[in-house]
Amino acid sequence: MPGYPALPGGIAYGGDYNPEQWPEEVWREDVRLMREAGVNLVSLGIFNWGLLEPAEGVHDFGRLDRIVDLLDSAGIMIDLATPTSSPPTWFRTAHPGARLVDREGRVIAGGSRHSFCPSSPAYAAASERIAERIAARYAGHPAVAMWHVHNEYGWANARCYCETSAEAFRAWLRERHGDVAALNAAWGTTFWGLAYGSFEEVEPPRIAPAGQLTALQLDYARFSVDAHIANFRRERDAIRRFCDLPVTTNFMIPNCEPMDYWRWAGEVDVVSNDHYLDAGRADNHIELAMAADLTRSVAGGRPWMLMEHSTGAVNWQPRNLAKRPGEMRRNSLAHVARGSDSVLFFQWRASRHGAEKFHSAMLPHAGTDSGLWRDVVALGADLRGLAGVRGSRVEAEVALVWDWESYWALELEWRPSVDLRFRERVEAYYEALWREHVTVDFAHPSADLSAYRMVVVPSSYLLTEAAGKNLRRYVEAGGHLVVSCFSGIVDENDTIHPGAHPGALRDVLGLSVEEFHPLPEGGTVPVGDGDGVGNGDGDGLTGRIWSERVRLAGARAVHAFTGGPDAGHPAVTRHELGAGTAWYVATALDPAPDGTDNGRDLRGLLRPVLDLAGVPRPRDLPDTLELVRRGRHLFLLNHGDEPVTVRGVSGTGVFDGAAHAGSATVPAGGVTVVELAGDT
Amino acid sequence: MPGYPALPGGIAYGGDYNPEQWPEEVWREDVRLMREAGVNLVSLGIFNWGLLEPAEGVHDFGRLDRIVDLLDSAGIMIDLATPTSSPPTWFRTAHPGARLVDREGRVIAGGSRHSFCPSSPAYAAASERIAERIAARYAGHPAVAMWHVHNEYGWANARCYCETSAEAFRAWLRERHGDVAALNAAWGTTFWGLAYGSFEEVEPPRIAPAGQLTALQLDYARFSVDAHIANFRRERDAIRRFCDLPVTTNFMIPNCEPMDYWRWAGEVDVVSNDHYLDAGRADNHIELAMAADLTRSVAGGRPWMLMEHSTGAVNWQPRNLAKRPGEMRRNSLAHVARGSDSVLFFQWRASRHGAEKFHSAMLPHAGTDSGLWRDVVALGADLRGLAGVRGSRVEAEVALVWDWESYWALELEWRPSVDLRFRERVEAYYEALWREHVTVDFAHPSADLSAYRMVVVPSSYLLTEAAGKNLRRYVEAGGHLVVSCFSGIVDENDTIHPGAHPGALRDVLGLSVEEFHPLPEGGTVPVGDGDGVGNGDGDGLTGRIWSERVRLAGARAVHAFTGGPDAGHPAVTRHELGAGTAWYVATALDPAPDGTDNGRDLRGLLRPVLDLAGVPRPRDLPDTLELVRRGRHLFLLNHGDEPVTVRGVSGTGVFDGAAHAGSATVPAGGVTVVELAGDT
Amino acid sequence: MPGYPALPGGIAYGGDYNPEQWPEEVWREDVRLMREAGVNLVSLGIFNWGLLEPAEGVHDFGRLDRIVDLLDSAGIMIDLATPTSSPPTWFRTAHPGARLVDREGRVIAGGSRHSFCPSSPAYAAASERIAERIAARYAGHPAVAMWHVHNEYGWANARCYCETSAEAFRAWLRERHGDVAALNAAWGTTFWGLAYGSFEEVEPPRIAPAGQLTALQLDYARFSVDAHIANFRRERDAIRRFCDLPVTTNFMIPNCEPMDYWRWAGEVDVVSNDHYLDAGRADNHIELAMAADLTRSVAGGRPWMLMEHSTGAVNWQPRNLAKRPGEMRRNSLAHVARGSDSVLFFQWRASRHGAEKFHSAMLPHAGTDSGLWRDVVALGADLRGLAGVRGSRVEAEVALVWDWESYWALELEWRPSVDLRFRERVEAYYEALWREHVTVDFAHPSADLSAYRMVVVPSSYLLTEAAGKNLRRYVEAGGHLVVSCFSGIVDENDTIHPGAHPGALRDVLGLSVEEFHPLPEGGTVPVGDGDGVGNGDGDGLTGRIWSERVRLAGARAVHAFTGGPDAGHPAVTRHELGAGTAWYVATALDPAPDGTDNGRDLRGLLRPVLDLAGVPRPRDLPDTLELVRRGRHLFLLNHGDEPVTVRGVSGTGVFDGAAHAGSATVPAGGVTVVELAGDT
Repeated sequence: MPGYPALPGGIAYGGDYNPEQWPEEVWREDVRLMREAGVNLVSLGIFNWGLLEPAEGVHDFGRLDRIVDLLDSAGIMIDLATPTSSPPTWFRTAHPGARLVDREGRVIAGGSRHSFCPSSPAYAAASERIAERIAARYAGHPAVAMWHVHNEYGWANARCYCETSAEAFRAWLRERHGDVAALNAAWGTTFWGLAYGSFEEVEPPRIAPAGQLTALQLDYARFSVDAHIANFRRERDAIRRFCDLPVTTNFMIPNCEPMDYWRWAGEVDVVSNDHYLDAGRADNHIELAMAADLTRSVAGGRPWMLMEHSTGAVNWQPRNLAKRPGEMRRNSLAHVARGSDSVLFFQWRASRHGAEKFHSAMLPHAGTDSGLWRDVVALGADLRGLAGVRGSRVEAEVALVWDWESYWALELEWRPSVDLRFRERVEAYYEALWREHVTVDFAHPSADLSAYRMVVVPSSYLLTEAAGKNLRRYVEAGGHLVVSCFSGIVDENDTIHPGAHPGALRDVLGLSVEEFHPLPEGGTVPVGDGDGVGNGDGDGLTGRIWSERVRLAGARAVHAFTGGPDAGHPAVTRHELGAGTAWYVATALDPAPDGTDNGRDLRGLLRPVLDLAGVPRPRDLPDTLELVRRGRHLFLLNHGDEPVTVRGVSGTGVFDGAAHAGSATVPAGGVTVVELAGDT
Repeated sequence: MPGYPALPGGIAYGGDYNPEQWPEEVWREDVRLMREAGVNLVSLGIFNWGLLEPAEGVHDFGRLDRIVDLLDSAGIMIDLATPTSSPPTWFRTAHPGARLVDREGRVIAGGSRHSFCPSSPAYAAASERIAERIAARYAGHPAVAMWHVHNEYGWANARCYCETSAEAFRAWLRERHGDVAALNAAWGTTFWGLAYGSFEEVEPPRIAPAGQLTALQLDYARFSVDAHIANFRRERDAIRRFCDLPVTTNFMIPNCEPMDYWRWAGEVDVVSNDHYLDAGRADNHIELAMAADLTRSVAGGRPWMLMEHSTGAVNWQPRNLAKRPGEMRRNSLAHVARGSDSVLFFQWRASRHGAEKFHSAMLPHAGTDSGLWRDVVALGADLRGLAGVRGSRVEAEVALVWDWESYWALELEWRPSVDLRFRERVEAYYEALWREHVTVDFAHPSADLSAYRMVVVPSSYLLTEAAGKNLRRYVEAGGHLVVSCFSGIVDENDTIHPGAHPGALRDVLGLSVEEFHPLPEGGTVPVGDGDGVGNGDGDGLTGRIWSERVRLAGARAVHAFTGGPDAGHPAVTRHELGAGTAWYVATALDPAPDGTDNGRDLRGLLRPVLDLAGVPRPRDLPDTLELVRRGRHLFLLNHGDEPVTVRGVSGTGVFDGAAHAGSATVPAGGVTVVELAGDT
Repeated sequence: MPGYPALPGGIAYGGDYNPEQWPEEVWREDVRLMREAGVNLVSLGIFNWGLLEPAEGVHDFGRLDRIVDLLDSAGIMIDLATPTSSPPTWFRTAHPGARLVDREGRVIAGGSRHSFCPSSPAYAAASERIAERIAARYAGHPAVAMWHVHNEYGWANARCYCETSAEAFRAWLRERHGDVAALNAAWGTTFWGLAYGSFEEVEPPRIAPAGQLTALQLDYARFSVDAHIANFRRERDAIRRFCDLPVTTNFMIPNCEPMDYWRWAGEVDVVSNDHYLDAGRADNHIELAMAADLTRSVAGGRPWMLMEHSTGAVNWQPRNLAKRPGEMRRNSLAHVARGSDSVLFFQWRASRHGAEKFHSAMLPHAGTDSGLWRDVVALGADLRGLAGVRGSRVEAEVALVWDWESYWALELEWRPSVDLRFRERVEAYYEALWREHVTVDFAHPSADLSAYRMVVVPSSYLLTEAAGKNLRRYVEAGGHLVVSCFSGIVDENDTIHPGAHPGALRDVLGLSVEEFHPLPEGGTVPVGDGDGVGNGDGDGLTGRIWSERVRLAGARAVHAFTGGPDAGHPAVTRHELGAGTAWYVATALDPAPDGTDNGRDLRGLLRPVLDLAGVPRPRDLPDTLELVRRGRHLFLLNHGDEPVTVRGVSGTGVFDGAAHAGSATVPAGGVTVVELAGDT
């Protein structure tokens, strides 16, 4: 079964379609304009539960029937949704026990979406029933190409703290730990004498004095993910009883910290993702690239679907900046370059009422006589030219380790420094590699890494003993590993590995850490040359946030701290192990900011490791030029204000049919895609 | 019936009097000192419910009888209060269902005032009973001049979220919308499938995930105002059954956002207001002027009463700065200049206990051998000289549109930019006009505007279709209209008007807006000359917060953006419509800061429109000199550090009897009031 | 009965020991290493309730028996704890009414410690039972040297707001006030008509609108302290029934504002204290010195015990900076210098799980091959050399007034300025005196002050009439008193003393204050010479936060404000009264920052008063050198980066046996302790 719908046009183009917000005469205009724009797929019915089931058990599919037929008649395929992220108002009234309760014990009101308890049996029954009714009715309809279960699981109700959730958690704990003695051992409840006498004594990690059991909090995070997955499975299986077309649910990678998408990955037929820029953030196209690479990695390297992004401003940021000229096109094509087989938007037509009316759409309030609409039409044409990309794969030689459990664990209270954050460190390493034009995959630390020339572990605080051994095997077999500070400290229960830090990585790194030395707020620490073995370019690096006392035990120093609490001690080390090398960075270095590539930063630090590992990458390109190869297509995206010429490019320009023999010039702000010639 | 008490001295002078906090021997000193200071009116009994009714249904009026008689014997009139803003402790205990519940569901404790549910039937019964008992007892007493119902409605309990309130809200909705289908249509509940099956399913807008229905929130705000008004009416009508003296309640204009005082205006016999400076704010005398003008406008242009202000520091700001020398006098006379027929303070004598003991008073802790007391006595003398002002009116040629509903709507979440605030924009336009020495009225957007030469609409986001037509009629009839960005976007249900923005104003402005371009935090955008038709002085203006893409459709550009996302497109436009003009400002401009009047700012921008409209105003006066005409009196208030001579002034100085023939010089920090000669 | 255990080694050395977190084979290593480090006392069993009583009424002392015997066999004494700060999980489940409820009404969850209601009868019964069982079992065991009840009373549950607490509060009020009329009089409930009809109407000061009765809040703070003391007494008395060894509980001076340790002082046999540095704070060794002096003062000048501090980083600050080289030693010896007869740490061995695993310990995760361990062993040796210090006393000639009730009262809302804080002002005066090498005691304002040459009252806002008279007697008898602004304003019920401010101090200071003039945020006010009587060095002082209008009535001006709202009026005054003088500082001055001692600051201001009072102190020493005399031992601690030579020192160096004849040189960062020769 294919992971995404077989569309004649190749790349799926379209967006969320909410015709229930409009009178029927508008629908006909919608369909006409969809065709004008080249739309071939819409996601339908995401938020209409209250209209399909106006009272409990009473259904009315008339409107949906008409719109499905209308789309069918226009040749537009449908990604048909179950509307279960926004239960009807009667549901709250009839089932007060299904209301979401937050960590502080507040019952969350309605009038919005996602305000239900994910462990509620009433919700389970109601959501299964509506999913089944929809599947039964529309399975086999020729316009239906795939299924879109729910919407953004965990958007506002990632974790509920009600008594129903507490009961479900206790059952989950019984399943995970078997008996309460095992739970006590795992959670380390000898600390503060918090040993449980029975599962009944376990409460969710509701608001508590500082120092709440961290293992309890981690298990609650896991349980909560599983509660949402159970809801997904129930609906997916209901659909399966009627239809074998692909089923997905839209993820929010990487901006939904509570959702462990490694757990989710195996549940969907095709991974789909919603991605929105932080409009006020500099270089947010790098964050977009990271999101796309992580999504592809969650999809196991297979093509995936960009289910939502925006044509312009969103509505939920403090200041909702519109996109600049060309930005929507660059965003869209960057997602395709990194593995998406679709370019879909929230939403087709801008709403007149409700909470999202200031969110941009394909068809803005200003109508078709607008720059935005013209850009939408032009993008549709571009995508038709990219049909050949569909199904092809992106290859990466470098992997970054990403583990949601470690992300959660590092965010808990009472760590050595609030400044050391998982996401910040991942983004620093990602950005350094992006600026080096290196395409990366993300990987779970226990995944098979043998295909990668180099693996980077950015502050993976939680790392199991097994994962440590996995990394050791990777290095011994010839891999090149870069680990940043505060990795490998605790196991899956937030228990410190025995002995000196970093317990899970001491042997692979050939060192131990005697004491952590977090820096004061805003403090920095200078890093210079080490024992003469290192990279001379590294003189004058500046560490932030963290310093620590490294004790070598097999590794050698490449750079040393030249000031701060660890002056004269190693800052960057290298360990020869088996056929590979393991590097360690004992502080937080930053990637080179745009245009100042002097080697005195994380990018410069990684370069010799990339060389050692033999990671191929173009040289002499500005780091405003994004270069990604997908199958036989080379995507060149120019984020700068000057045209850039890329050498070594031979093939045919996809948008203009131009013949490139050895080079391609990408205009400022533009995108060139070249179908490569021969066997390049 | 007069709107305020007929006092022999003309302007009412005095303040809140809380003798119950003091032994009776102090009362006699109070009365003696009141006479020394020229006090002729005190507000009595605002906070003594717990003393008048020490147990439910048990009354004790002895103390109040004695103090009323004592004041009467001294010739001091009484504004007699109902004490219902601070229910007795037994009320909470006996009626737990009447407790205030906040949006998060927290039951608000006692030990303070205003902690009751405004929709509580128990409160309704208890407050009506005590009001009736007081009215019955003191109606006809010669010292009682008027009635002061409650105190500062909505001070802490503007909106309650308890179940009693929920029930009352549902009844209110039935009244407003008739049936649930109409409610669904009005609220746009097709969005997220939030259609209600019955009124019983409606909850107050308690804490919810982002994106709660905005129309629900607006209706809850309206309902809450009506709940307070109902409480007022009940007490007022109870008094009416015994007495036909004027009844008021003290408003908090403009610093109580949840109270829509347009709704309140018709309920009181005389508008009265409490006003306190933000002591740390620069130029807070301009905010005072705005408050007074808005109060007068709520009063329909009739004289009003300044019910509370302060002699010095308040007690509830982070840093309670005292007033500077002369400031209390300037504040007091500015209120009179702008229509107040009273100068009343909170409070007469500084408290020794309770929450307000660090609030200044007419009689400070330091006693009568103090600068403050001497200032109080001197002010009393000044006011006797102003008796002739009483009852006269302030005339304004310019109106600023102010709509609390639009204020609320713009404050809701998920607007294009958190930086664009109703109050900030109103104050910017007000300040620009104040610095131009233009006295303004405020008006509801649907009011009759035909009396004004010019009308300004500062970011009235919510503007009904009817209000849009009202503004069109105004312009067509020869009015001059200035509209600032993000006006006329939505209707009363926060639904976007059909078509391109600004739906309610496209035709009157002769343009549409293709896309909003909010600026990043702290960002600015340059504005220069337009198509050559504009005001050359406008070169080099700087917009903040907002830019947008204006499409002309009848209007012409006066200034254009010279940078930012809309460079080369109109920033300020002018539309000739019928006999008038409609101007549009597509960004947020600031008024000229003190002393830098080079025209490159909002003040400079408005000047040609003022000229076009023929708005009379003095020229060549520094903008530290406040000039207001009320009836035959010209008030000149000097907020600067240098004396200022004002030309064209002929008449008699009220305080010193000086003859002015063509000019008046106002000392630094001083106030001159001239009774104008002849028919000037 | 001695206040602390008689140990052969003199100073007690060791820390919290939590063997239950480790397998038994680790215990043997622990004991071996304790002996290596010179540990002679450990605090045992603080957090093992859940292990000792795994189900209600079911006890298991096997593990504790074994560890007690093991320690005994190694000659290590035990400070045996009752584990009642962390009730078992079954306790929460069985007694839901005993759960802590915060001011907002939120029920606080478990999974941490201290989450019980201090007024709970169920807690009282359960804690008494476990204390009694432990006392019964281990009383008389030769290893047990003393008793450690609970841990850090009030750490997270200082004040509970549940209904059980409300009932207990009402009973407490009946006891304190007798009848409700007296309560109404004390609380000033005529304000806002909040008179109570019965005690049943009193609620705890739960979340309320601003302006909640301040006297209610103060009484609730007092009640809450008493609730914890009652819990302590119950356990202490249970122990007493079996054993007469000393009983303590570890205080958190001065970092637990809600605990009034003057109330606690008489309850314990020996005062013990936990102290942790704010690692990111500059000169935090001065705060440490203040904590130690205050602890000694709470102990009535008797030796006390440092029950907990840290070898390095803590785990609960935002950035947990490790200690710098030598810092742990300086910290430890500073506590001993200021009266501690112990140096104890949290904790012996770093935890592998739970909330405190990143807290430093005597034995770090890195093990014994670490700098930290070597420092611990060296410190143990140092302390053996200090055995002769034990039991000796520190003498101080100056007292600082410290009153927790005033601390609380000043922190309540609606004071003149949020910037004027009790703790900030105390620390400013303390620091100025510390830099002058003056050792101070702290004193309650009603204490006998006759032993002190000088007394400083830093912004004691709440000061009873009796305390005012006490200060007057002190001055009349020849004392020298320095009072800073906003002292003596209210009585114990937060009622302003009659008449002009400062009511409790007008006569002793010879002045009154006409009006407070808080400064804007960040504002300053210049202070220059006064009437020529003052100290010429004082020119050019800078006041912050506060200015006020002083009216002399017997005092004379020493310095005057030269700008700001009180320019030309007194800023610093002096009043000759009886045989002494009373000085007043009408603004907030700062101590001299390190190295800029030019007299133009608080330190310079205090110097002439110190001279007048004849307070002896060394001259010409840098203010990085801390000098304290305890009995016959002189402690010299060098906090600077250069060696310092101190003259006038003759005796024997304790650590190195060096003979000092007239001087001692202290290395940078080092500590020298000299046993003084002869009768110096």
